[in-house]
Amino acid sequence: MAELAARTDLSVPTIKYYLREGLLHPGQAVGATRSSYDDSHVRRLRLIRALTDVAHLRLDTARAVLAEVDNAANWHDAVGSAHRRLVAPVEQPPSDDSLARVQALLDRNGWTLLPDNPLRENLARALDALSELGQLVDDELLDTYAAAMKSVARVEIRGIAQEDPETAAQHAVIGTLLLEPVLLSIRRIAQQNTARALMDGRAARTARG
Amino acid sequence: MAELAARTDLSVPTIKYYLREGLLHPGQAVGATRSSYDDSHVRRLRLIRALTDVAHLRLDTARAVLAEVDNAANWHDAVGSAHRRLVAPVEQPPSDDSLARVQALLDRNGWTLLPDNPLRENLARALDALSELGQLVDDELLDTYAAAMKSVARVEIRGIAQEDPETAAQHAVIGTLLLEPVLLSIRRIAQQNTARALMDGRAARTARG
Repeated sequence: MAELAARTDLSVPTIKYYLREGLLHPGQAVGATRSSYDDSHVRRLRLIRALTDVAHLRLDTARAVLAEVDNAANWHDAVGSAHRRLVAPVEQPPSDDSLARVQALLDRNGWTLLPDNPLRENLARALDALSELGQLVDDELLDTYAAAMKSVARVEIRGIAQEDPETAAQHAVIGTLLLEPVLLSIRRIAQQNTARALMDGRAARTARG
Repeated sequence: MAELAARTDLSVPTIKYYLREGLLHPGQAVGATRSSYDDSHVRRLRLIRALTDVAHLRLDTARAVLAEVDNAANWHDAVGSAHRRLVAPVEQPPSDDSLARVQALLDRNGWTLLPDNPLRENLARALDALSELGQLVDDELLDTYAAAMKSVARVEIRGIAQEDPETAAQHAVIGTLLLEPVLLSIRRIAQQNTARALMDGRAARTARG
C-alpha cells in the first residue's frame, strides 16, 4: 500500500478510507496482513483524485459518478446518465418564459431533449437568475453559444465514439467533467484578451482623435 | 424587512445574517427598531443568491467576488480581477510539458497572459489531470475550444463594453460566473444530441448492411 500511495501522491490513511467506503476495490490478499495492488488500483485512485481535486466534486457526488462509470452499458448511455448525476436539482421551478426560450433554442438548433431531462430546467433557471439581476441573455448570445458548442461537441464525441465501449463510457464521464475546467479557462483567457484588444483599440482611436 | 424577504424569496434570518456579515449594506434607520430598505438592497440580495445558488460559490468566495464588484475601476479591470478571485489555487504545480502546451496554445492564437496570471497554471494542471487518467487532450481539441471561445468572447465582451463603467464592472463579474452554467448546459445538450445522431447513423448503416 505504501507503493500505491507513492504512485498516486495520496496518503495511506486516505487510501484506507477509500477502501472502507467502497470507492476503491480491494487488493488481492497475500498473507494475513498484506494485499497486492495493481495498475487498476492506480487508475482508480487517480480518477478519484481528479474528480475531487480538479472537478471539485464532493465525495458523495464522486461516488455516484464512479457508479455510472462502472455500470454504463455503452458510451451513449454513459453521456446521458453521467449528466443526470451531475446536474444539481433546481431549488426553484423556472419561469414559463425561460422554459419557452429554452424550447425555442432547441427548435432553432434541431435538438431534442426528453421531457424529464433535468438540463431543460437547469438552463431555464440559469436564465431566470440572470434576468432577475437585470442581465438579460439575448438570443444572439444563446445562438452564439449553441454554434460554438456544436463544433466543440463534434470533436469531443468523435474521439469517444472510436473507442471500445468500456473505455468510451469511462472517457465520456471523465471528459464531461474534467474538460469543463479546460474549456472555461480558455473562455476566460479569450475574454481577457478580447477586452484588452477592445480597450487598446479605443485608446488608439482617442489618441488619434 | 419582511417586505424585503418577500421580494427576494429569502428568509428574515438569512437577511439578518448577510447584514451582520457585511455582505448587505444597512438600511436607513426609521425609529428605534425599524429600518427602511430600497431597490439597491433587493438587487444586492438577488446577486448574493445568484452567486451562491446558481454559481454554487461558497459564502467566503461570494464575499470576495462582491468586493471586486464594489471596487472595480472599470469593466476591463473587473474582468481580470474577478477571474483572479475565482480561480482556485492549484494544489500541485503543473508539469513543464503542460505549461509548454499552454504557451503554444496562446502563441497559436495570438493571446498573451501576464506571467503571474493563475489561469496559465490552472489550465496546465487540468491538462495534467487528464493525461494522468490516460485521456490525452490533443491540440485539435484545444484549438477547437480556442476558436469556439473566441467567437463567444467577442459577443460577450461587446455587450459589456457598451455600458457605463459601474454597470459594466458588475456585469463583467456576474456574466463570467452566471453565464458558465448556461454555456455548460448548452454543451451537454449538444453532446447528447451529437452522440444520439452518431449512434442512429451507425444503426442505420448496420441495418442497410
